Amino acid sequence: MRPVAILGIGQTQIGEHWDKSLREIGGEAAFAAMHDAGVETVDALFVGNMLSSTISGQNQLGAFFSDWIGLWKQEAVKVEAACASGAAALRAGLMAVSAGELDSALVVGVEKMTDKAGHDVTSALATAADADYELEQGISFVGLNALIMRRYMHEFGWKHEDFAPFSINAHANAMHNPFARLHEKISVEKFEKSSMVATPINLLDASPIGDGAAAVVIVPAEKVVSLNGKPKITIIGSASATDTIAVHSRKDPLFLSAAYESSKRAYEMANVSPDDIDVFELHDAFSIMAALSLEACGFAEKGQGVRLGLDGRISPKGERPVCTRGGLKARGHPVGATGIYQIVEVVQQLRGECGATQVDGARIGMAQNIGGSGATVLTHILRSD
Amino acid sequence: MRPVAILGIGQTQIGEHWDKSLREIGGEAAFAAMHDAGVETVDALFVGNMLSSTISGQNQLGAFFSDWIGLWKQEAVKVEAACASGAAALRAGLMAVSAGELDSALVVGVEKMTDKAGHDVTSALATAADADYELEQGISFVGLNALIMRRYMHEFGWKHEDFAPFSINAHANAMHNPFARLHEKISVEKFEKSSMVATPINLLDASPIGDGAAAVVIVPAEKVVSLNGKPKITIIGSASATDTIAVHSRKDPLFLSAAYESSKRAYEMANVSPDDIDVFELHDAFSIMAALSLEACGFAEKGQGVRLGLDGRISPKGERPVCTRGGLKARGHPVGATGIYQIVEVVQQLRGECGATQVDGARIGMAQNIGGSGATVLTHILRSD
Repeated sequence: MRPVAILGIGQTQIGEHWDKSLREIGGEAAFAAMHDAGVETVDALFVGNMLSSTISGQNQLGAFFSDWIGLWKQEAVKVEAACASGAAALRAGLMAVSAGELDSALVVGVEKMTDKAGHDVTSALATAADADYELEQGISFVGLNALIMRRYMHEFGWKHEDFAPFSINAHANAMHNPFARLHEKISVEKFEKSSMVATPINLLDASPIGDGAAAVVIVPAEKVVSLNGKPKITIIGSASATDTIAVHSRKDPLFLSAAYESSKRAYEMANVSPDDIDVFELHDAFSIMAALSLEACGFAEKGQGVRLGLDGRISPKGERPVCTRGGLKARGHPVGATGIYQIVEVVQQLRGECGATQVDGARIGMAQNIGGSGATVLTHILRSD
Repeated sequence: MRPVAILGIGQTQIGEHWDKSLREIGGEAAFAAMHDAGVETVDALFVGNMLSSTISGQNQLGAFFSDWIGLWKQEAVKVEAACASGAAALRAGLMAVSAGELDSALVVGVEKMTDKAGHDVTSALATAADADYELEQGISFVGLNALIMRRYMHEFGWKHEDFAPFSINAHANAMHNPFARLHEKISVEKFEKSSMVATPINLLDASPIGDGAAAVVIVPAEKVVSLNGKPKITIIGSASATDTIAVHSRKDPLFLSAAYESSKRAYEMANVSPDDIDVFELHDAFSIMAALSLEACGFAEKGQGVRLGLDGRISPKGERPVCTRGGLKARGHPVGATGIYQIVEVVQQLRGECGATQVDGARIGMAQNIGGSGATVLTHILRSD
């Protein structure tokens, strides 16, 4: 594989964009990334999206955005892997550029979720779970995560408030991210008093949905000449792995084996170990997922992920910074776009553009994007040179 | 790019499979392809599908099928490009194997469409068109194709019955394909008397939907040692191109520019010309699309595609064989699966396994898969050695 670099990044603010259509939101991020990269066109477009067919009645987002962005004739396709659609689209683009087939690609993660009523969105999100063996029982996606969290608390003796640091860190960091959906500082007390969603998951354990898009321009690393003083960011690790789609089919529902596999392969490809990772944008769709992700990636022992938060090690000034731009919890979780937001944020850290939440000397960053309750997991490792 | 070969093929009979679930249909084709390839596992899975989120309430088909097939831990993802989803999934797998990232991949095209009422399927298929600028006007997908066909007849002076040979050829060939949905010989008289769907498209201009799946196993060509006497089939050309998603935005709605672009690039990559193509599995979702595809790929002058049929040149014994296993028209069109059925059928021709519809001495075959009304088009060229 020939090495691939990220030449430009773009993102939209995440929110309820009633005044903007699906194409406008995706286009905004795409144009921002192309502007940042200093290119006027690209060889191909890869779109990560989960819900446009059900929520916007629109499929074929490859051609749809290629048309809107003005990339007529170019190759374009949509990739879907539930909430991991964004990173899956990046990996598809990465393979095509690596193969030597393309000399540049635009990868856009996009989701417009707030045009429908809440129960419609809940139903649409549930398509990430197993329709035959989970949804038929009437369980929702948050319900599945609630079962996992309850079992984790029981098994390892943690209280609900022990998860608070994940949410508090994410909210604190989002205060400094203008693209974040939520700008609100929270406390342990607020965390504990928040409305219940599906016991034990309350509103502050759960990430908010939203409309948003993020984009990156990737090119063969050897073709990067000038970056106007910005460091060169190379994708040194990329891996995707799967687990059973139904949670009940897993040998151990408290271990994200696909997160373990994909991080292991990404570490090997990048020739780094967990200790080398300076910043980690993890997939905190629910606070329990933050803990399980840290454990699966080798940052904590099994059942001890929450300790990293309790010990104050996950802030941008700690030894294991996560969710430095707000994470899914406070930046927001426009599902098919999230994986690209994570990549954009790692690039911002490696470029040193994060201001108050900058991780000092960040040189190697990792992003992990999780689809379903851990069924599809992609891990990417980036390095600045 | 390192060359890639097709090691195995599999397919299910297309029909209304009330007794089989989405996972069973996809699994049947996947296992058949792995059995044909003589492999027990693969490095990754690429799934082409358009409608499972709306029709079956199931997303994340990569992990979904990886789980069902028993490829746990392996990479898996779904690719969507409307009716071109199958070929788009093949191209995604091809890039990953070409890049050297994978040593084998299973590509499955799958669609289960008959579980819902006809109007629900019509709505779901319409998501291939532009929701904002076409569907909002109340037009259906067949309606868009009817406008194109009417204009073509007006512009070039053809009568409706001039399109009959496409349908007659497809139905005649499907008689010898046990996997085809329709086994019924038709005549010009029957073609003309068929029920109207959207003037001038009648029932025998239109391809039937259906439940079905097709699959291929691909590997680096250099790794193919023994094939039990079968010829080695290499993918020598692969290209994808896009056009505007809305038909009204095109400079010329009677020219499939994405079909032209993708076939041009595929010819260049394969270093062949149209004359070198021995068999062509084209995308006859509607008879008008057969004509336009032949023209865009250089097999006929503009406005003269129908002449190939009228002159008797498109049968397996003619000089320009198309739809040799029944095409979309009679083999059937399970949308996200169609692109892989086409590839499977080209492989069958290059292996010499087509019996009564075998094209003598077929050595180079082409398949073209069209998404929407020509918005995403993929062309693949295969050669037997």
